[in-house]
Amino acid sequence: MNQYMNLAVSLAETVYGQTGANPPVGAVIVKNGRVIGIGAHLKEGENHAERAALKACTESPKGADIYVTLEPCSHHGKTPPCTDALIEAGIKRVFYASCDHNSKVDGLKVLKAHGIEVILLQHPKIFELYRPFNIKLKEDRPFITLKTAMTLDGKIARENGDSYWVSNEQSRKDVHLLRSIHDGILIGGNTLLKDNPHLTVRISAIDKEIRPVILLGSKLLSSELNIFEHPLKPIVFTTNKDNLKFSNEFQIYYGEYELDKILKICLEEGIHSLLVEGGSTILTSFLNNNLFDDLIIYIAPKIFGYSEYQIHQAKEVTVDNLILHKVEKLESDIKLTYRRTRQCSQD
Amino acid sequence: MNQYMNLAVSLAETVYGQTGANPPVGAVIVKNGRVIGIGAHLKEGENHAERAALKACTESPKGADIYVTLEPCSHHGKTPPCTDALIEAGIKRVFYASCDHNSKVDGLKVLKAHGIEVILLQHPKIFELYRPFNIKLKEDRPFITLKTAMTLDGKIARENGDSYWVSNEQSRKDVHLLRSIHDGILIGGNTLLKDNPHLTVRISAIDKEIRPVILLGSKLLSSELNIFEHPLKPIVFTTNKDNLKFSNEFQIYYGEYELDKILKICLEEGIHSLLVEGGSTILTSFLNNNLFDDLIIYIAPKIFGYSEYQIHQAKEVTVDNLILHKVEKLESDIKLTYRRTRQCSQD
Repeated sequence: MNQYMNLAVSLAETVYGQTGANPPVGAVIVKNGRVIGIGAHLKEGENHAERAALKACTESPKGADIYVTLEPCSHHGKTPPCTDALIEAGIKRVFYASCDHNSKVDGLKVLKAHGIEVILLQHPKIFELYRPFNIKLKEDRPFITLKTAMTLDGKIARENGDSYWVSNEQSRKDVHLLRSIHDGILIGGNTLLKDNPHLTVRISAIDKEIRPVILLGSKLLSSELNIFEHPLKPIVFTTNKDNLKFSNEFQIYYGEYELDKILKICLEEGIHSLLVEGGSTILTSFLNNNLFDDLIIYIAPKIFGYSEYQIHQAKEVTVDNLILHKVEKLESDIKLTYRRTRQCSQD
Repeated sequence: MNQYMNLAVSLAETVYGQTGANPPVGAVIVKNGRVIGIGAHLKEGENHAERAALKACTESPKGADIYVTLEPCSHHGKTPPCTDALIEAGIKRVFYASCDHNSKVDGLKVLKAHGIEVILLQHPKIFELYRPFNIKLKEDRPFITLKTAMTLDGKIARENGDSYWVSNEQSRKDVHLLRSIHDGILIGGNTLLKDNPHLTVRISAIDKEIRPVILLGSKLLSSELNIFEHPLKPIVFTTNKDNLKFSNEFQIYYGEYELDKILKICLEEGIHSLLVEGGSTILTSFLNNNLFDDLIIYIAPKIFGYSEYQIHQAKEVTVDNLILHKVEKLESDIKLTYRRTRQCSQD
């Protein structure tokens, strides 16, 4: 494995989840066998990895090679094209690990037209790194993770509705890590009013907030809810006109919205990855519409017996397009990551 | 770790599940730094490990050491006391890895009284090796494993009762391995009549049968059932007198029997470890009575939605005395082994 591309991938992995609409990218500039510049795309609107690496160069990058995890961009977005910067700097060769499936990007062609050699260097971690970004591009909706915590017998809550402490402390901490790598968090009106959640990322070391999306239905907001203190402006979909009085505090979409439309709006609102922490109704509806990419389930070592609060409430369902991707033991809880099977085009 | 005790433990592990009422035991005889005899207890009624190792000695064991996984027996059972054999052979020192909790056994005392040195050599695998045997002694009932295969949402079968192929091929193979290390397999009348199971160990390399125990209730046996072809005589508990006509083919217990009593009878019938492959009714009843030691669950990557066929049918239950012991990935299925928490006395 190439050591410079390896470093570029590590850089990209480290900024995973903090780059908003953009994919995480790392870049390493090498001249005469010495690393002369290192960079990563740190935040949407800031320098892309290539420009960051060029800026960090300790000597002239003229004639140097660059190792970059993704095909350099060739279009004007929030920042000018990276291809311009590479050409201008006199970079000789561009090693890249993945094409950019964004149709606006044609960086390889531009570089070649300017006499720069472009070489694909595959890396085993690239598929995972760009999976959410590529799915978003392909499906034209946010990458969707459904998450729930349940008992061994598949119950989200007891029959009386009590769902407190189904999972253990380690699982609950893990959920906050999960939140920190998503842009939005979606719940339903039942959960909002019953659990009165904060929907924040409670990890002291992480400066990242996740934007709430509430499918409120006909229910009514009330100013005592914890969600009013959220640092980001929550997005609320509601069929109840009376909620419009909170239009200062919330981005309110009034009317009947299909899930597809809701997801499009999320994307427009800058939510590129969405964590669905639904109760039963929400989960059932995303599962029924096949609107998910990862399904993450925390299983606690408990049995609740019969309860209507379960991951899927309908009768005679068969969801059988799941593949078990990862298994983690969190003390006596277990975390299962399933993926929906799909035709997936990869480089 | 002592190499000889390590070998003795390996011998014992290899015969786990084939020694009936007796625990699995291995023994290694060492003289002047050379192994001169190796043995294991292969089958109930046959030589214990110590006698097997003595018999296998290539030279006189006089003055030799023996490494044995369990305290040698000092009582007349199906075979005479091992202590007699060790004393007679002139064994000088006995290294053992665990006391025998069988109250009839006082081998260490007998050996010491005959001038033989006895030394405890602990081994990390001993607790697992003798756990079923020790639980059986302590609880005076068979060691009990509850086993079920279910969907991700805790369903054993669809609402229409169809339970075929919940789990994958690898899981189903694993179940036969599980059967092969138990003496008895218990199911209910519903499962017997609906699924018409063979209840055999279908692993070509294993010559071990498992004895069926059927909690038939008021249902009626019919001679077309596959269970009639079982190589061992099934035990049937029934409240329906009409089943008595099959007394030649089955060991029939007619009347009302509590679970406690049923388990005592299993023990008397030579079932020292019992695999409960119940449907919902049976599982619910064993869970409610806290009558289990291991709970093994195979989870398939499917969702069935609402169905009454689930691991526990009662409402507002809380089984929360489970500890996750082991997690295994079987392709897209997952195997979870839980244990009931208990005060456990160990050497």
